[in-house]
Amino acid sequence: MLEQRIRHRGLQAKMMTAEEAQSWIKDGMTIGVSGFTKSGDAKAVLQALARRVERSGETLRINLYSGASLGETDGILVEHQLIARRLPYQSDASLRKRINRGEVTYVDQHLSHTAELLRSGCLGEMDLAIIEATAITEDGGIIPTTSVGNSPIFVQRAKHVIVELNTEIPEAFEGLHDIYLPEDRPHRAPIPIRNVRDRIGTPYIPCSPDKIIGIVPSKCKDTPSSIVPADAETQRMAEYILDFFQHEIRRGRLPKNLLPLQSGVGSVSNAVLSGLAASPIGDLEIYTEVMQDAVFDLFDAGKVVFASSSSLTLSERMTEHVMRNIHRYRDKIVLRPQEISNHPEVVRRLGIIAMNTALEVDIYGNVNSTHVGGTQMMNGIGGSGDFARNAALTIFVTKSVAKDGRISCVVPFVTHVDHTEHDVDVLVTEQGIADLRGLSPRERAVEIIKNLAHPMYRDALMDYFRRASAHGGQTPHLLAEALSWHQRFMETGDMREAESLVPVM
Amino acid sequence: MLEQRIRHRGLQAKMMTAEEAQSWIKDGMTIGVSGFTKSGDAKAVLQALARRVERSGETLRINLYSGASLGETDGILVEHQLIARRLPYQSDASLRKRINRGEVTYVDQHLSHTAELLRSGCLGEMDLAIIEATAITEDGGIIPTTSVGNSPIFVQRAKHVIVELNTEIPEAFEGLHDIYLPEDRPHRAPIPIRNVRDRIGTPYIPCSPDKIIGIVPSKCKDTPSSIVPADAETQRMAEYILDFFQHEIRRGRLPKNLLPLQSGVGSVSNAVLSGLAASPIGDLEIYTEVMQDAVFDLFDAGKVVFASSSSLTLSERMTEHVMRNIHRYRDKIVLRPQEISNHPEVVRRLGIIAMNTALEVDIYGNVNSTHVGGTQMMNGIGGSGDFARNAALTIFVTKSVAKDGRISCVVPFVTHVDHTEHDVDVLVTEQGIADLRGLSPRERAVEIIKNLAHPMYRDALMDYFRRASAHGGQTPHLLAEALSWHQRFMETGDMREAESLVPVM
Repeated sequence: MLEQRIRHRGLQAKMMTAEEAQSWIKDGMTIGVSGFTKSGDAKAVLQALARRVERSGETLRINLYSGASLGETDGILVEHQLIARRLPYQSDASLRKRINRGEVTYVDQHLSHTAELLRSGCLGEMDLAIIEATAITEDGGIIPTTSVGNSPIFVQRAKHVIVELNTEIPEAFEGLHDIYLPEDRPHRAPIPIRNVRDRIGTPYIPCSPDKIIGIVPSKCKDTPSSIVPADAETQRMAEYILDFFQHEIRRGRLPKNLLPLQSGVGSVSNAVLSGLAASPIGDLEIYTEVMQDAVFDLFDAGKVVFASSSSLTLSERMTEHVMRNIHRYRDKIVLRPQEISNHPEVVRRLGIIAMNTALEVDIYGNVNSTHVGGTQMMNGIGGSGDFARNAALTIFVTKSVAKDGRISCVVPFVTHVDHTEHDVDVLVTEQGIADLRGLSPRERAVEIIKNLAHPMYRDALMDYFRRASAHGGQTPHLLAEALSWHQRFMETGDMREAESLVPVM
Repeated sequence: MLEQRIRHRGLQAKMMTAEEAQSWIKDGMTIGVSGFTKSGDAKAVLQALARRVERSGETLRINLYSGASLGETDGILVEHQLIARRLPYQSDASLRKRINRGEVTYVDQHLSHTAELLRSGCLGEMDLAIIEATAITEDGGIIPTTSVGNSPIFVQRAKHVIVELNTEIPEAFEGLHDIYLPEDRPHRAPIPIRNVRDRIGTPYIPCSPDKIIGIVPSKCKDTPSSIVPADAETQRMAEYILDFFQHEIRRGRLPKNLLPLQSGVGSVSNAVLSGLAASPIGDLEIYTEVMQDAVFDLFDAGKVVFASSSSLTLSERMTEHVMRNIHRYRDKIVLRPQEISNHPEVVRRLGIIAMNTALEVDIYGNVNSTHVGGTQMMNGIGGSGDFARNAALTIFVTKSVAKDGRISCVVPFVTHVDHTEHDVDVLVTEQGIADLRGLSPRERAVEIIKNLAHPMYRDALMDYFRRASAHGGQTPHLLAEALSWHQRFMETGDMREAESLVPVM
């Protein structure tokens, strides 16, 4: 069985346990690991490393580079003080806490940028790559599992590679992946993707067998994704978007089957996709970084013709379903390196419809998707910036209020800007939808306040906007008040002024 | 002479005066005009329109779309209250004043986005295009003059076209331009540019002769560009960048002839290019939106092998030189639509080095390049965002202080974000240079404060950063103080606190 999955004869001798493999890891190393939004992440060796330091009590810290977030391993590593530096994305609660305490250095990057920075030599040398694999080909090529992420560039750049051979992954996963890396500049060719279904590379990550120093058999499962079921408000937001799509089709501004969809991780995006299952729109294409449960529901409803992403991030139930029925899906999906799934060239060419989640938006349409109060990191910018600037249509969603109404997610001035007004076409809250395309900041403000703000904050926002506008300007602000709502929340636990406190509607 | 320039026989009958042509313009029309940073702009017909309303006293307002800024015509139009709506860029003082008063609606756009928005139908219908031309081909094709800008998409989308045939432009300009527009989605092909010199389209803007309703002979000159000569500080900033290039070449992170250069309009960019004339670096390539004087100085010094842009924006002296010697340059330059000169696909593929100017930067590397005090618009974001996010290396420059030291251009929190920390690799002031690649926000802050801030603001910035960091966070801020420097300036005319007031060094 294992021999069948290690088709390069010479490499069969490199089998070892996770305990043996982890001994390659030394203090100060820079290590690139497979894994993208909890999928296909290296698990066995890193967890064995955590057990080692627990036993030995030694101080050991690594620079950990990945595709995006790992599963429970991120938390295990940080609890053992193993991470000095982390990039380009994370979503673990205890890791987040250490980052915000300044104990872990976190470099938040556009997910398509990391490979370029490594290639240009600006992120230093990579000592080791640890890659979860389904199998190893006759030539040493590594067949990934449930994600591709940054594994191809890590394998290319790292001095040594350890493979975690996960025998729980069906062998039928071979053929799902399409590995293509742009050439070094200045001799780079166009990325020849003209359709979401185009395969342009190899089904394995090319790797010189000499580079592989260990192969660790593993049966670790991906940490299942936990999708919050859509509540009534989420459902309403999804409906606004679905109505908007229909409206754009009627106006001739979108094709009948839309354009390829990107949807960030989150319950609204998931609800939109679920909503499409019941809508008259069909023949959908997906070009995204993460396929969530809803994509497979759409396949099963006959609504999607093809889906491309960098990972499968599924619930426990859906993982089982997909693993068991992989033969039904394998000619309709492709997993790509995140540099390609998120590449501005392809995003712009295909004309993606990008749907992502905001923490807060301001009255001019700037979006904060990462920092609470401008200071505390949530998860990171992820791929949202790769898609938002280059998509044909960029949508951000957020509920209009949080914390039972004590926070307005529509504010005079966002405390951190991840996406500027230039990159934000449409905003959606449970209150409504605002189509901001072609509007000036003052025009945007009226649409945003009127359509998106919660009624209990609407008057205060309009009052701010009117008073600011009285002083003129393209993007009128009163600097003394711009951040006062956030300050008030920090002081009183509520963005509302005391006299305006009314129960949530 | 004129017949030679109108090679389509049927069109010769459509010659008319600017006075006749302007009568096509009606109140409320949306008009797309040629012109990019004061070059190749439609002048005769719009100025005749201004004379008409001056005579008649009528109220007439148009939506004016262009490539980028027009020359003096923008000012003439706005002085006659002719502009209701303007996009995607402007740089005229009186237009800016009306925009900031809210009298002209200005939609500030990434320069590569306008064509896509028009194509998708989100900017409404275009009634008329007015395009300055060198000649008209046998088939009605329009050969542009000193810029291409958005003219191809305007010609494609407008119901009617008026051509301003500028006989002052040498006929040898024919062949300079390379007109290529991406197909409508979902059938779009890769843009086949693999090298700055690649020609992928036609030397003229395809146009059905029926669309052309008038041809106006013109001898109007472009408004010459006025480049502020480099002062000692500008010179120093250029030297930091040149040293940095050499350093990167030695480290093997940049090729010996660099990567294709983009430089925004501004004296620092111009000084960097001038500095390259005296440096050992040669065989340079330029892939930019605007060629300024320095590009031709570099040609004359034998330093540049090829330059691609969307316009020639030259001083009076250099205009004369280039016009007289166009035969020497014409096989070394190409003028492209701004959608192509700024296209994320090409910018990323070629690995552009992007140099642009900031108004202010914050301690975490976010850049404001458009809004004074977060409110008052200067010129617009222009192409900086097209390049910054997708370039191989993104540099922003600003002097460390303005207004004799009363303003620090390094601040705790920028009042407007055009470029986020993720898109800003290197920052330069006359104080020094900060290489921010691969650094976390807290690490960036130390580099920025130490290397870039003016000494008289350095301690205050470090004090802010330290006190903010004490409360934790990925990007530590004290919201009550974040914008206080700007508030202080508005109240006292000086960002410095009274007790710290010392003379400028």
